[in-house]
Amino acid sequence: MAGKVFFSVSMSLDGFVAPESVPGGDVFGPGRQDDPQVRRWLAQWTELQQWVFPQRFFRENVGFGAGGEEGRDNDILRETFERTGASVMGKRMFDLGEQSWPEDAPFHTPVFVVTHTGRDPWERLGGTTFHFVNDGIERALDRAREAAGDRDVRIAGGGTTILEYLNAGLVDEFSIAVSPVLFGSGTRLFDGVDASRIALEPIRSEPSSRVTHLTYAVHRR
Amino acid sequence: MAGKVFFSVSMSLDGFVAPESVPGGDVFGPGRQDDPQVRRWLAQWTELQQWVFPQRFFRENVGFGAGGEEGRDNDILRETFERTGASVMGKRMFDLGEQSWPEDAPFHTPVFVVTHTGRDPWERLGGTTFHFVNDGIERALDRAREAAGDRDVRIAGGGTTILEYLNAGLVDEFSIAVSPVLFGSGTRLFDGVDASRIALEPIRSEPSSRVTHLTYAVHRR
Repeated sequence: MAGKVFFSVSMSLDGFVAPESVPGGDVFGPGRQDDPQVRRWLAQWTELQQWVFPQRFFRENVGFGAGGEEGRDNDILRETFERTGASVMGKRMFDLGEQSWPEDAPFHTPVFVVTHTGRDPWERLGGTTFHFVNDGIERALDRAREAAGDRDVRIAGGGTTILEYLNAGLVDEFSIAVSPVLFGSGTRLFDGVDASRIALEPIRSEPSSRVTHLTYAVHRR
Repeated sequence: MAGKVFFSVSMSLDGFVAPESVPGGDVFGPGRQDDPQVRRWLAQWTELQQWVFPQRFFRENVGFGAGGEEGRDNDILRETFERTGASVMGKRMFDLGEQSWPEDAPFHTPVFVVTHTGRDPWERLGGTTFHFVNDGIERALDRAREAAGDRDVRIAGGGTTILEYLNAGLVDEFSIAVSPVLFGSGTRLFDGVDASRIALEPIRSEPSSRVTHLTYAVHRR
């Protein structure tokens, strides 16, 4: 049986999945933190993802060593990782991550990067290989499905790529961790959503001490 | 002890508290439902508020007679009503409501309408009196506090008025019922929020079968 296509993101209460982008983009680059705009980006992004960092699974997965919290937030991170047989991501997210992921990148599966230019696969330690797909989002998804086998395909991000898949009717289900922060500006997850064609069916709503995890199935209407 | 100032709204998952406004505005007026734009507005608004209509408390309060669901959604509607000693609302919400509320308007307390023009108080059956305040949002709130005694003041809406109070640092706490719908356009609750000055403290997160009720305390930062 084929797996599902899903995404799972942290969203501010006012609907943003990333702070307003910074000229130059490479917020994780060396010396970039001297720029006040970069510092502001990082502070907002850290607040949005706050619930993730103390979790045991996150710490293990990025190589911060043992220790960390266990509980529903931790379980959700682990379950999301374990169901994922392959990921798809946009070029902008890849560019940002290329500077910040450890050599042992945190995916440990094939990752298909939607891009406009060719590039040879980039193999990292620990089972992550980035494949660059320059013939459209459907082709990238097909390749990810194939690689995932009976596990699920995660549309990893960023916001623009997620929305392209959602509007194309290619997403089966998604989860949002609603963080208790307001951004005021940035990348809105649903900006440009084809609302008239998408119906949501609530699947689960799970509060933790830090965020609320909302899960919906996506239907056409 | 003085009560709190709060708001409580239904919000689409993409952050809207009202559909895109319709030329003419009076969506509830006679014959207006022949206009396809009005029909679309009503359909979206009905979807957003879907969780409210079947509840026993709602049905009793608007005079639909006995019957209806009981459960956490119903309790929340009742608790929100009972804590409210007075409401504040914007002129646009009043104008819309003036056409659609029953003679026995559903507030049963004093309501202070923020407006730019004078008008005598408008008394309705069942204890609702609308007072028109044309000297600013702070004055409207002062009068509402006075009228509410030790009960709370609800900033009833619409979105623009709620945001004015939030940005002015006059809101202590708020609740959002996140509905499983996407609007794509309309009135965004947090559009123009002064995010850099507002910190949210999660108070409660309560899923029901239809929506998730999120409650936050508001702090300055």
